[in-house]
Amino acid sequence: MNTIGILTSGGDAPGMNAAIRAITRVALAKGIKVMGIQRGYNGLINGEIFEMGRDSVSDIIQRGGTVLKTARSEEFRTPEGREKAANMLRIFGIEGLIVLGGDGSFSGAQLLSNEHGIKTIGIPCTIDNDIAYTDFTIGFDTAINTVVEVINKLRDTSASHERVSIIEVMGRRCGDIALHAGIAGGAECVIIPEMNFEFDSLCRSIIETKVLGKLHYIVVVAEGAGKAQDIAERIEKCTGVQARATVPGHIQRGGMPSAFDRLIATKFGATAVEVLVEGKSQRVIGIKDSKIIDIDMNEALSIKKTVDKDLYHLANNLSI
Amino acid sequence: MNTIGILTSGGDAPGMNAAIRAITRVALAKGIKVMGIQRGYNGLINGEIFEMGRDSVSDIIQRGGTVLKTARSEEFRTPEGREKAANMLRIFGIEGLIVLGGDGSFSGAQLLSNEHGIKTIGIPCTIDNDIAYTDFTIGFDTAINTVVEVINKLRDTSASHERVSIIEVMGRRCGDIALHAGIAGGAECVIIPEMNFEFDSLCRSIIETKVLGKLHYIVVVAEGAGKAQDIAERIEKCTGVQARATVPGHIQRGGMPSAFDRLIATKFGATAVEVLVEGKSQRVIGIKDSKIIDIDMNEALSIKKTVDKDLYHLANNLSI
Amino acid sequence: MNTIGILTSGGDAPGMNAAIRAITRVALAKGIKVMGIQRGYNGLINGEIFEMGRDSVSDIIQRGGTVLKTARSEEFRTPEGREKAANMLRIFGIEGLIVLGGDGSFSGAQLLSNEHGIKTIGIPCTIDNDIAYTDFTIGFDTAINTVVEVINKLRDTSASHERVSIIEVMGRRCGDIALHAGIAGGAECVIIPEMNFEFDSLCRSIIETKVLGKLHYIVVVAEGAGKAQDIAERIEKCTGVQARATVPGHIQRGGMPSAFDRLIATKFGATAVEVLVEGKSQRVIGIKDSKIIDIDMNEALSIKKTVDKDLYHLANNLSI
Amino acid sequence: MNTIGILTSGGDAPGMNAAIRAITRVALAKGIKVMGIQRGYNGLINGEIFEMGRDSVSDIIQRGGTVLKTARSEEFRTPEGREKAANMLRIFGIEGLIVLGGDGSFSGAQLLSNEHGIKTIGIPCTIDNDIAYTDFTIGFDTAINTVVEVINKLRDTSASHERVSIIEVMGRRCGDIALHAGIAGGAECVIIPEMNFEFDSLCRSIIETKVLGKLHYIVVVAEGAGKAQDIAERIEKCTGVQARATVPGHIQRGGMPSAFDRLIATKFGATAVEVLVEGKSQRVIGIKDSKIIDIDMNEALSIKKTVDKDLYHLANNLSI
Repeated sequence: MNTIGILTSGGDAPGMNAAIRAITRVALAKGIKVMGIQRGYNGLINGEIFEMGRDSVSDIIQRGGTVLKTARSEEFRTPEGREKAANMLRIFGIEGLIVLGGDGSFSGAQLLSNEHGIKTIGIPCTIDNDIAYTDFTIGFDTAINTVVEVINKLRDTSASHERVSIIEVMGRRCGDIALHAGIAGGAECVIIPEMNFEFDSLCRSIIETKVLGKLHYIVVVAEGAGKAQDIAERIEKCTGVQARATVPGHIQRGGMPSAFDRLIATKFGATAVEVLVEGKSQRVIGIKDSKIIDIDMNEALSIKKTVDKDLYHLANNLSI
Repeated sequence: MNTIGILTSGGDAPGMNAAIRAITRVALAKGIKVMGIQRGYNGLINGEIFEMGRDSVSDIIQRGGTVLKTARSEEFRTPEGREKAANMLRIFGIEGLIVLGGDGSFSGAQLLSNEHGIKTIGIPCTIDNDIAYTDFTIGFDTAINTVVEVINKLRDTSASHERVSIIEVMGRRCGDIALHAGIAGGAECVIIPEMNFEFDSLCRSIIETKVLGKLHYIVVVAEGAGKAQDIAERIEKCTGVQARATVPGHIQRGGMPSAFDRLIATKFGATAVEVLVEGKSQRVIGIKDSKIIDIDMNEALSIKKTVDKDLYHLANNLSI
Repeated sequence: MNTIGILTSGGDAPGMNAAIRAITRVALAKGIKVMGIQRGYNGLINGEIFEMGRDSVSDIIQRGGTVLKTARSEEFRTPEGREKAANMLRIFGIEGLIVLGGDGSFSGAQLLSNEHGIKTIGIPCTIDNDIAYTDFTIGFDTAINTVVEVINKLRDTSASHERVSIIEVMGRRCGDIALHAGIAGGAECVIIPEMNFEFDSLCRSIIETKVLGKLHYIVVVAEGAGKAQDIAERIEKCTGVQARATVPGHIQRGGMPSAFDRLIATKFGATAVEVLVEGKSQRVIGIKDSKIIDIDMNEALSIKKTVDKDLYHLANNLSI
Repeated sequence: MNTIGILTSGGDAPGMNAAIRAITRVALAKGIKVMGIQRGYNGLINGEIFEMGRDSVSDIIQRGGTVLKTARSEEFRTPEGREKAANMLRIFGIEGLIVLGGDGSFSGAQLLSNEHGIKTIGIPCTIDNDIAYTDFTIGFDTAINTVVEVINKLRDTSASHERVSIIEVMGRRCGDIALHAGIAGGAECVIIPEMNFEFDSLCRSIIETKVLGKLHYIVVVAEGAGKAQDIAERIEKCTGVQARATVPGHIQRGGMPSAFDRLIATKFGATAVEVLVEGKSQRVIGIKDSKIIDIDMNEALSIKKTVDKDLYHLANNLSI
């Protein structure tokens, strides 16, 4: 392995830069040349490729987003697009490609390997934590800390007005942000796509806690399980208690990465280089039971993400 | 002056607690009894009144919201409601009332003074900074710091995706949050209700800066001047550049108050007590040209808030 | 199990309140009475014990420190002291005691169990992460985030002056804070008590990176491995490069707990109640390989904490 | 005015970058060439000068420190050094020089003007706020927010242990950081160089508040008025209450600038360019009574900074 390439693809996640830094520094220490590819698969097709030195990754560990930028690529979905991409990799002498992104980005990497024999390694980066083979994806810990901070701010004003606050967080199919941030934020109710939810019992609980003198009631809902604005309106109508919706939106993707995200990103990045050097391909890196692992990309993509039901029930028990 | 009352009314603002603390401690030091009135004018009418000791305000200086809670009161808008309120003040022996809130809360205080001879003092608390007689209202500095933090987080992800970010901030009639946070956050464009705005020139600027290689373009819009979602859609349609809307909403009202807000809140609170002790009534406290002032409530309510045009033009010059 | 007691002992750690909240709410939901014991074993001896309702733990999940307060107790080290403590537990009908603290606090719990048959459960709380049987202690994640934030602030000023910054962090025998925060903060050098360290090679590295144009050089040292001030003076003398020492001290113990600490604290607290209900005693709760575990207290105290050498070497590789 | 130069000198202060950005963008908008001078007067002497475009100041408004770096210069204190500096300015065609720094930096600018006819403008940047002619210096608001955050963190742990916390903050001759942060942080005692202080009355107050059941007692001391460690030891000895010292040190210089600092920095920078364009020299920019001012450098340096005694007495009244 003389030259490797790095690209970030799909939605950005805080900690991507820490992974880029670790890949670059560990590879350089092994005498491997590192090429940064800008704007994901799109930039690869267009040849937006430049050599990275140790300075290219100075002072980036603390920055959100990705210095390599990211983009979605329609062209890469076609065999022709992937052929162009493979050509670019050959032209620039890139023998192994490390892809930072989510499920979709890994599928792209897999096609590139299958069709053109490129060695690819995936690093899971998504704030949603919706990838099943790994306990944590890069960006998730930062996102839940961001949401917890949002809940803190809303709690002040919500308690002063004795209102219900409904916070809609990211997570289309996966309620992990809502569940973890809800528990950590001390939310009274968590609504996620994986679990049934009874609106009437929420209203009953709001009224009961109000009667007990509780000043605020916080509901965290994953975007895949409902719209905050709708829920707020229904609550007001049903309970007569004021309810306000907040949608932090893209704030959740940004911000300085947490220590945890920087640490796993650093370990994932270092491991990705080692796995490539060992000659492996089509592997994805992750953390399982506190250990850094690499598993087959195919297998990884086939594992179905499930929700931690115990944690969900704990959330409800704590709000009583 | 043997006994004073404090109430917080209207929307809450970070720093209200610092003012409550200063009023309480300064009054107690002067041998004056302090009564806390909960839930604004509504609570006053209902007799939700309790004596405050120095412990009642321990460890609250750093907390957002208001420990006295706040509420809007329809009943207080009627002469009968205000009579009930005046009776409560008499029953509890409250000779002077300090009202923390905005314009509307001051109007209420004025009616109470005019109709029932109650001595009232107003302290300006609103994140919007929409009160003309004072350079700063309590809560404004915290709110702009919160928005600046939001801009920081959006900048990361916005730059990674090379998108336009539109952030809709509070301010129905007054663009101060948008203007100050926009400049401090390094926004490329600020849209406020007080100034005309040309959509085409925004689009031209987005395209020009894109061509120059700029990775992100941040627009801050006051809620009174447009909806972020609409603007995002129009920008995408007109320029072809991806645009994303974020509405931080009630987050802007919450959070730990900034040092500046705690300081002016402390000074305003201390001054309010002194002004009451001097026997004055119907005065509002403020800060003008770095000096703490008290002026006639009537006069204060008649001054029209204007925007700082130089600052607005500076915002535009800096984005070039 | 009709009544349980909770006490916090030794140094405080962010997240203790989240654990107290979970214990209280989960126990109440099971119909168990909860008694809060103030000021650790000292308060237990003195009978500083009060019943806790669900309101006692409202709005504490986000607060650092411990609402039960903590103290060291000389008297509890004597058999007479422990007899008094056991009497108090009997008087107040406390059948099971949950102790939040570190090694020393667990030893106390064990003696109480052995000598007086009290059922005890330990929950590991210490920012140092110096307890071997668990992957993480409550407070550690918050502490490393605090140190990472300190490093961020120092980086700004350090780079502007092109100085070396030496940050002395907590950890007398255990370098985990230094190691994790050092990597996450992008430090160039980490000095911990568990590993030998060559001063000359540090100086060489400072000079080499200076020559390469690097603006700052950050050293994180665990208090057990050296004094920041001494190291700064030696570096200046040896390299001629300006060096500044910073000792964040007790800041590391404070602050709002991170999402991660709140989550494990919540899980540990809930599990501690369940383990007590199952009739077990002398168990400590922890997290191992992502699973919440309970193990024998004796066994737990006998496991020796070791440093993650791979992580230490990774830290050095990344700084090249 | 065809070409201007910018340099940052002395200690760095958060907000310097916002001023550099404003100077650059406003000057470029007026068709003036901008030269950045690195490492203060030292870099000027050495010709470390480069042309700045609008991109040179992209994404720096939110960063602490100074992108131009700073250094102290012995050589510039000599007439020969200043002659070299003046030559460099001529060689690079710099007609007007904007100096960001404190008193010492302004004296240097004055000598350059007097001896070599260079047009100079000063912008006050120092976290200490020790410059008399301006109400605020750039960096002060950020520093007090940083100290307030430190106090918050210490309060948690201090209250849990019922200890006295002594925080030593920057300010050799000027107690403004201690005074403002002390009030905003709710400190019980503020010790500053400008005011006499009785140690016995501090001890009496500690004991009195302890008896009243107060959990913590926070003392903020300016470095020019005492060492935190000494004070802690004396308190323990005299009162028997545990006391802990914390010295945040250079943390106070770093961090993201606050909104307020970014705003005044932006205004100061824009005004500095305008003043130069008007042909003025030896002026310093500031804010007085909420207005941006420029006054004669000589006069500015002769005004003696005094402490706000009312504020000092308010601090004491609030702690009762």
